[in-house]
Amino acid sequence: MKKIINDPETVVTDSLRGLAAAHSDLLRVEYDPAVVVRADAPVRGRVAVISGGGSGHEPLHGGFVGQGMLDAAVPGAVFTSPTPDAVQAAVNATTTDAGALLIVKNYTGDVLNFETAGELASADGLDVRSVVIDDDVAVADSTFTAGRRGVGGTVLLEKIAGAAAGRGDRLDDVEAVARKVIGQVRSIGVALTAPTVPHVGEPSFELGPDEIEFGIGIHGEPGRERIPAEPADALVSRMLDALVEDLPFHQGDDVLLFTNSMGGTPLLELYLAHGIAERLLGERGINVRRRLVGPYITSLEMQGISLTLLRLDDELTDLWDSPVNTPALRWGV
Amino acid sequence: MKKIINDPETVVTDSLRGLAAAHSDLLRVEYDPAVVVRADAPVRGRVAVISGGGSGHEPLHGGFVGQGMLDAAVPGAVFTSPTPDAVQAAVNATTTDAGALLIVKNYTGDVLNFETAGELASADGLDVRSVVIDDDVAVADSTFTAGRRGVGGTVLLEKIAGAAAGRGDRLDDVEAVARKVIGQVRSIGVALTAPTVPHVGEPSFELGPDEIEFGIGIHGEPGRERIPAEPADALVSRMLDALVEDLPFHQGDDVLLFTNSMGGTPLLELYLAHGIAERLLGERGINVRRRLVGPYITSLEMQGISLTLLRLDDELTDLWDSPVNTPALRWGV
Repeated sequence: MKKIINDPETVVTDSLRGLAAAHSDLLRVEYDPAVVVRADAPVRGRVAVISGGGSGHEPLHGGFVGQGMLDAAVPGAVFTSPTPDAVQAAVNATTTDAGALLIVKNYTGDVLNFETAGELASADGLDVRSVVIDDDVAVADSTFTAGRRGVGGTVLLEKIAGAAAGRGDRLDDVEAVARKVIGQVRSIGVALTAPTVPHVGEPSFELGPDEIEFGIGIHGEPGRERIPAEPADALVSRMLDALVEDLPFHQGDDVLLFTNSMGGTPLLELYLAHGIAERLLGERGINVRRRLVGPYITSLEMQGISLTLLRLDDELTDLWDSPVNTPALRWGV
Repeated sequence: MKKIINDPETVVTDSLRGLAAAHSDLLRVEYDPAVVVRADAPVRGRVAVISGGGSGHEPLHGGFVGQGMLDAAVPGAVFTSPTPDAVQAAVNATTTDAGALLIVKNYTGDVLNFETAGELASADGLDVRSVVIDDDVAVADSTFTAGRRGVGGTVLLEKIAGAAAGRGDRLDDVEAVARKVIGQVRSIGVALTAPTVPHVGEPSFELGPDEIEFGIGIHGEPGRERIPAEPADALVSRMLDALVEDLPFHQGDDVLLFTNSMGGTPLLELYLAHGIAERLLGERGINVRRRLVGPYITSLEMQGISLTLLRLDDELTDLWDSPVNTPALRWGV
């Protein structure tokens, strides 16, 4: 294993020091326990939007802390859920009488630890709610999950919930729009190579030189099947079939298309896949109204991509378009 | 070779279709020859800033077309210089009486082809100048280069020259500030793995499981030496030694620090390296006033990083801070 790190035990903390140094205008970092907090938090009257999970998926979640998105992110060890006390520290650093919404990806450890933290916060008299996102259509249950996994839709959910909080919505309304996003978003991923977790030191799985894992999870969890490598047209078509039939998306729907790199895929290939997806959705009569293309929810250096479709209405479109200023997403400011 | 492509022969064109679909508000793409053009070009009275080079380094250059940066980008085949007629098409699509500045990375093919295009444009009566950037301190001559290679400093140069053109500077002044950047910027890169060019089909070089190429080029050209893998503190220190002693940078200097991923390095590691670089520069009394962290000039899926230092004065700082709206860099708008 070759990595640009000092010690697998301190890799998350060491990386957070770089994040804090690079973006001190947007956020601050607390180290014990590790929490990334929006620079101006807490703000009285504004609902706090908080997320977190294992590290190794950067820029998720710390790269989305800032104006119009997250108030705090709680980074666990690599591919490991954050502890309840870390989530609680994030709540305490950001939450006022307006309350907080916790955005939880559906992995067993995350759900348990965020739930425990939410109960501790409630005992302290804070109004803290949780939503669990489970947008991955690949498989029903998985290595770390009962039910579907939370993947690419999380990025869109964090943007839209953060925008709702930012315009002054009350907690009931922020929660409601978050649940709407969860109901309208679906994702599917593929992997060409495996990631290597620093404290493990070897690849998470083995893939043959001509194999693709179809339906990969963001921790390298198995998908639906191993398929032979195929041209991008066929692969993207296969991914869209899985997505469109799941919700299902219909002819005439307006959607946001999010083409995501798992980390190691060159932008050259990512835009190529995005172009194919736009063309194929157009052929189905599905209207791509908004796009996001880039490495936003990754699995360390894994090569692969995911596609996420969110069905849009006017409210979700407006919230998506509203200004955001974070290390990884920035527009309108 | 596993890649998300249809055909090595069409990979650049296929990828440009995705870029055009994703960012039609910012740019348009011409396909024969391939040129990425800012949506509002040509604008009378504004100097056109144009760059280009082999593909495979995305988001460089097409991802930097837009407000406050490039008017056009000319993508060659992967790791192959664009032809003179493609550069000429970019000039013709963007250049008015205000003239154009061509930003050329110092590779023999690029220099020749941009020079030829510039001569053709001059014969057409257009005022077209070129600057050649050669910021890589690693080696004096290289596989595709007489003199030093142009690498990470190119990103900063394109931003600052584009800002100067955007505020209405005349061609003399845009050229002058570009030459100032070239005089004040230095870069160094390292590789942990090799990239695979689609039409070649196998890795560009071989590295042992515990070897790092110190001073790598962005096409996988050899650097200064192969070194054993070492902790990030030692590696970043070695990189900064090479940079600081070259210009040299002095105690008390104000700098922009650009920590760049070569494509395949996780953001977790990239921010970790950035944090170390900020700390070590601080210990030297060099003041990091601005930062850029991310994959901005890549070498396909190569794992590795580069560090770029630009000495700042008030003018360069103001131009850096001014609004930019491109697919890959966006702030202030």
